[in-house]
Amino acid sequence: MPTPQPIRVAVVGATGYTGAELIRYLARHPFVRLTAVTSEQSAGKALADVLPSVRGKVDLQLAAFDAGRVADEADVAFTALPLGTSAPGVASLLERGLRVVDLGADFRLRDAKEYARWYVPHPVPHLLDEAVYGLTELCRDRLPGARLVANPGCYPTGALLALVPVLAASLVEPQGIVIDAKSGVTGAGRNVAAEYLFAEVDDNLRAYKIGVHRHAPEIEQELRRHAGVEPSLLFVPHLLPIRRGILSTIYLRPRKGVDAAAIAAAYQTRYENERFVVLSGARPPEIRDVVGTNDCALGWTHDERSGHMVIVSVIDNLGKGAAGQAIQNLNAMHGWPEATGLDHLAVVP
Amino acid sequence: MPTPQPIRVAVVGATGYTGAELIRYLARHPFVRLTAVTSEQSAGKALADVLPSVRGKVDLQLAAFDAGRVADEADVAFTALPLGTSAPGVASLLERGLRVVDLGADFRLRDAKEYARWYVPHPVPHLLDEAVYGLTELCRDRLPGARLVANPGCYPTGALLALVPVLAASLVEPQGIVIDAKSGVTGAGRNVAAEYLFAEVDDNLRAYKIGVHRHAPEIEQELRRHAGVEPSLLFVPHLLPIRRGILSTIYLRPRKGVDAAAIAAAYQTRYENERFVVLSGARPPEIRDVVGTNDCALGWTHDERSGHMVIVSVIDNLGKGAAGQAIQNLNAMHGWPEATGLDHLAVVP
Amino acid sequence: MPTPQPIRVAVVGATGYTGAELIRYLARHPFVRLTAVTSEQSAGKALADVLPSVRGKVDLQLAAFDAGRVADEADVAFTALPLGTSAPGVASLLERGLRVVDLGADFRLRDAKEYARWYVPHPVPHLLDEAVYGLTELCRDRLPGARLVANPGCYPTGALLALVPVLAASLVEPQGIVIDAKSGVTGAGRNVAAEYLFAEVDDNLRAYKIGVHRHAPEIEQELRRHAGVEPSLLFVPHLLPIRRGILSTIYLRPRKGVDAAAIAAAYQTRYENERFVVLSGARPPEIRDVVGTNDCALGWTHDERSGHMVIVSVIDNLGKGAAGQAIQNLNAMHGWPEATGLDHLAVVP
Amino acid sequence: MPTPQPIRVAVVGATGYTGAELIRYLARHPFVRLTAVTSEQSAGKALADVLPSVRGKVDLQLAAFDAGRVADEADVAFTALPLGTSAPGVASLLERGLRVVDLGADFRLRDAKEYARWYVPHPVPHLLDEAVYGLTELCRDRLPGARLVANPGCYPTGALLALVPVLAASLVEPQGIVIDAKSGVTGAGRNVAAEYLFAEVDDNLRAYKIGVHRHAPEIEQELRRHAGVEPSLLFVPHLLPIRRGILSTIYLRPRKGVDAAAIAAAYQTRYENERFVVLSGARPPEIRDVVGTNDCALGWTHDERSGHMVIVSVIDNLGKGAAGQAIQNLNAMHGWPEATGLDHLAVVP
Repeated sequence: MPTPQPIRVAVVGATGYTGAELIRYLARHPFVRLTAVTSEQSAGKALADVLPSVRGKVDLQLAAFDAGRVADEADVAFTALPLGTSAPGVASLLERGLRVVDLGADFRLRDAKEYARWYVPHPVPHLLDEAVYGLTELCRDRLPGARLVANPGCYPTGALLALVPVLAASLVEPQGIVIDAKSGVTGAGRNVAAEYLFAEVDDNLRAYKIGVHRHAPEIEQELRRHAGVEPSLLFVPHLLPIRRGILSTIYLRPRKGVDAAAIAAAYQTRYENERFVVLSGARPPEIRDVVGTNDCALGWTHDERSGHMVIVSVIDNLGKGAAGQAIQNLNAMHGWPEATGLDHLAVVP
Repeated sequence: MPTPQPIRVAVVGATGYTGAELIRYLARHPFVRLTAVTSEQSAGKALADVLPSVRGKVDLQLAAFDAGRVADEADVAFTALPLGTSAPGVASLLERGLRVVDLGADFRLRDAKEYARWYVPHPVPHLLDEAVYGLTELCRDRLPGARLVANPGCYPTGALLALVPVLAASLVEPQGIVIDAKSGVTGAGRNVAAEYLFAEVDDNLRAYKIGVHRHAPEIEQELRRHAGVEPSLLFVPHLLPIRRGILSTIYLRPRKGVDAAAIAAAYQTRYENERFVVLSGARPPEIRDVVGTNDCALGWTHDERSGHMVIVSVIDNLGKGAAGQAIQNLNAMHGWPEATGLDHLAVVP
Repeated sequence: MPTPQPIRVAVVGATGYTGAELIRYLARHPFVRLTAVTSEQSAGKALADVLPSVRGKVDLQLAAFDAGRVADEADVAFTALPLGTSAPGVASLLERGLRVVDLGADFRLRDAKEYARWYVPHPVPHLLDEAVYGLTELCRDRLPGARLVANPGCYPTGALLALVPVLAASLVEPQGIVIDAKSGVTGAGRNVAAEYLFAEVDDNLRAYKIGVHRHAPEIEQELRRHAGVEPSLLFVPHLLPIRRGILSTIYLRPRKGVDAAAIAAAYQTRYENERFVVLSGARPPEIRDVVGTNDCALGWTHDERSGHMVIVSVIDNLGKGAAGQAIQNLNAMHGWPEATGLDHLAVVP
Repeated sequence: MPTPQPIRVAVVGATGYTGAELIRYLARHPFVRLTAVTSEQSAGKALADVLPSVRGKVDLQLAAFDAGRVADEADVAFTALPLGTSAPGVASLLERGLRVVDLGADFRLRDAKEYARWYVPHPVPHLLDEAVYGLTELCRDRLPGARLVANPGCYPTGALLALVPVLAASLVEPQGIVIDAKSGVTGAGRNVAAEYLFAEVDDNLRAYKIGVHRHAPEIEQELRRHAGVEPSLLFVPHLLPIRRGILSTIYLRPRKGVDAAAIAAAYQTRYENERFVVLSGARPPEIRDVVGTNDCALGWTHDERSGHMVIVSVIDNLGKGAAGQAIQNLNAMHGWPEATGLDHLAVVP
């Protein structure tokens, strides 16, 4: 492939954790020029003063978000804004002709009523139909023409990559699925709240939003579409004392006659050409296998004693769960190899 | 109650993590005199040179284990030895007339065949019948006369206190129970193995022994006895980057017509007079609520959407999961108030 | 000693980290009845709903601070309020006849001008003379009659206990002292700021306020008083990824002819009857030796190669650095044994 | 520059932490082909079975070290072996014509007597003269012809980059230097010892080897050579509860008339063209600014109150302190741009 002409890229919401991770990837992406970074709180400062790890590497000033200015400076925008603040900005960027990968939750649910039930009334419901739910492995054929990509939630990414192959192949029951998920704190964004203070999180573990987390309907929506089932699932997230990474332990009931070999075959068939899905078979993957990367690693066990199948799925919530997948989507949108700029190995230990 | 005559107590295996926690409690127990501490590796050293936190507080020398010498110096022995090394020592202490609380796994399973299946052939099977499985809340009537108490495993303690009330009351199905447990590293003892190095555990999470952990048959054994059911359960432990504490998220199916109120009533009835079981209702308890204590905290949620009941159980694996419960058993063996010497609040944060 | 009549105690600012630690100690103090707990943010809630570790152990409701009400309910108040908010409340409590142990910074500096230089103009300067700087080991003769005790800062406590013996004995030069201090995050209180989020602190270390921290003049003031020297010192604090504990590495120049034995003798002489100062000699103490206790542990090394003396001092910033010392002061104020209610061993590991 | 012909590279000691980090960099280095990886303990296994983060990315089998075989398969070897085991292997590789970058301590001290004083008698002293002490910024002119590069210790790297500019420019006194260094646990390698267990390190801090660490003579040796001074320094390392990173707080005495501007100028002059030295001026750098990179970040403060200068230096001990600098040396040895394959941004948070 000849080297493409670089496109100009903006990161809207550059000083949150997802924004910082986007910058880490984009600053070294060979086909991209990072031209604009916005922040409401730190407008006017040098990016390196807020994010010292870029000193000497990225020389940009932070500005408050202004759709017109971003449109002047960039061809594509990544929007990584706090909950509920994304939709209007996205709409104004689209109007000005940019392509947008939105890393917020505003365009993930297709149904405005469902959105309203879990969030608030949708401010720009006319865009819901157009948005491509950007789990790259499931949607890549729609990306070259996409104007608006709704980057998936971090929990749904790890869960869907684990569930779709075995549900779509009718190997497991779609009822009674339990997803026991454990996430590092950056999954909550750079949220300055007491519950995310070091002294509250360190050497602790807690479950939260048992059965009522907003990522459950997102998982169900995509299982309906991509596995063709009407699932019943229980999603229970836990907050881990780590910075990055999600490990989901998923409990399923195999259908009669299904054994470990059939399950392995389903994963191998589905993912044999996927660069970012790592199959680790009977060894359950660990979170650190994927931290700092765009990988999702999957392991599975068929427990004959209890009749359950257990899938362990790990991702970096800021990688495949956010910024990494957003870059993967960018690559697919432009017809570039999907691994462009994402070809790192995990930082271990 | 008049102040009892102090009994003399030995800790056999004093330099492991359970041994250290026993010493922390025993050094301040009002009815006990700690007279002997043993260690194979550190024999001859002052305890304070191996465990600096006792400097100026416990003035004892470590000696290699010698049953005769322990029998001279103590009335009761706590044995906290590595896997498989406990049984012969326990037998020799019993022969010399001591009462023993064993914190190893050797006397927990009643059936020598079952023990052999999960461990090795049992060296002293004639003692299995006599050993009292020391989950205090379930066995306290047998403790005053007990010569040998098998202190329960850490995972079983947290799971059984959660499961017995609702299974014994027939509120939930005994089939298809999933226990997704997360433990701090001291659950593995002071095990000098690469997998427990700081750089391997920090900022990581991993599942292990999915469906094949030795604590599963222990849980099943006690459910048969105390809940009168033949359960089918899947036990999946995970290793957390924390020092102490176990949080078990337990997934159950309520029987038809059972609602949240019925479940709450079962717990309240069973535990209303229990000092060390804390019911936190709909708020799921966190690990740090109990670290440094002998408490088990329980919360529960009835998820009507998926039809599951979720119980969250937390203990300190070195507290109620080991040393704390051993002291509670000691107290019950002697007719002392069970909270004697255990009356601490958790160190938070 | 006959059991004293319990005194009634209030904790003003009960939901911060120092407040929680005061409650942990006071709830089990044999001569105290905890009668009032205040919080502005959580007024009206049960304490156990904000601090779940006290559920079933402390049954009190939080109320907004009201000096009159506190005076009705308590004889002694511990004030643990955010910076700058303490002084007026303390004054109103004193007026109503309570004795006060203030855990803030408002009464530590004796000189209103010095206070104004580092903080703001002092709101109640007439109380500065009366306040006893409550480093118990240095001030205990003044405590029985004290109305107002200014509990020392956490950094000064660990530094002063290390420095006073060798400076007072003229063993080291008072010039060019370097204090390289490392503190856990609870030293900053329950401060909901971005810099104390888990994701900012974990797996990180940073120096801050190099040479300009407010605890430096506090250390100097007390060295003048208790060591009779005019010191020149450089104080450099660092933020550790731990919850509790301060380790200070202190660099000094011994005077000519002074050797390790002379230094050891100075510490032994000064502290031989001190319950809460642990001398560990050539083995440098570790933070975990003291977490959860009121101890200060000291080790020292005379490095002949470079001519330096190195002292390592550790405390729990919430223990001897705050709540523990406050209780020790309470005990001394009432003529009770200083260890009453403080007699715990460290929770290790 | 035209793309060079790839050279073939071996990592001898591939399963330690330094080995793993070498592989992370080398697997993505554009001018290198990783052809051989050795391990005594895991010989015969796939690298991906020992280091799961490389699954699907590096397809190599581990073999026991055999100099002949390594010479067949590689042109350059990186040796990352436990203390004292490196020298004989290095000698045999040199004999077979390979160029070697040794990441152990065996070739860092030039003087065999000094080596013997701190380690053991040197097994191959004739190679000491030839070895280039590979702190790239100080030695790069000697690298193109080097056969054997002694990669510096992690502590010396951070200290020397901080000290050389101001000592060489005679801005500070060479006497009485204090280096208070704090390191993550991977600085000790993958050392399976009780003191590095998670439960011993987490939420703890300890000083060790006060004044007697082997890195002190290494720092002094290079200060003599590169700053032309006979220094007197005290080096005090501490073990942090983090995986990677060293922060050194260095205390110096400026010479008369030297101010902050002079110090800043010395750093700017020395490092203005250096890609891997980041000057952060008055803001002290944090460890996380550099984790995962080959950067050294420096900040400095002139404290007029006490007359000290304080330098804060941070590196990733596995990056600039080991594997990163080794790759930088490789690049310089071959005339490639020094940043080749090292051009990552830090993974923050």
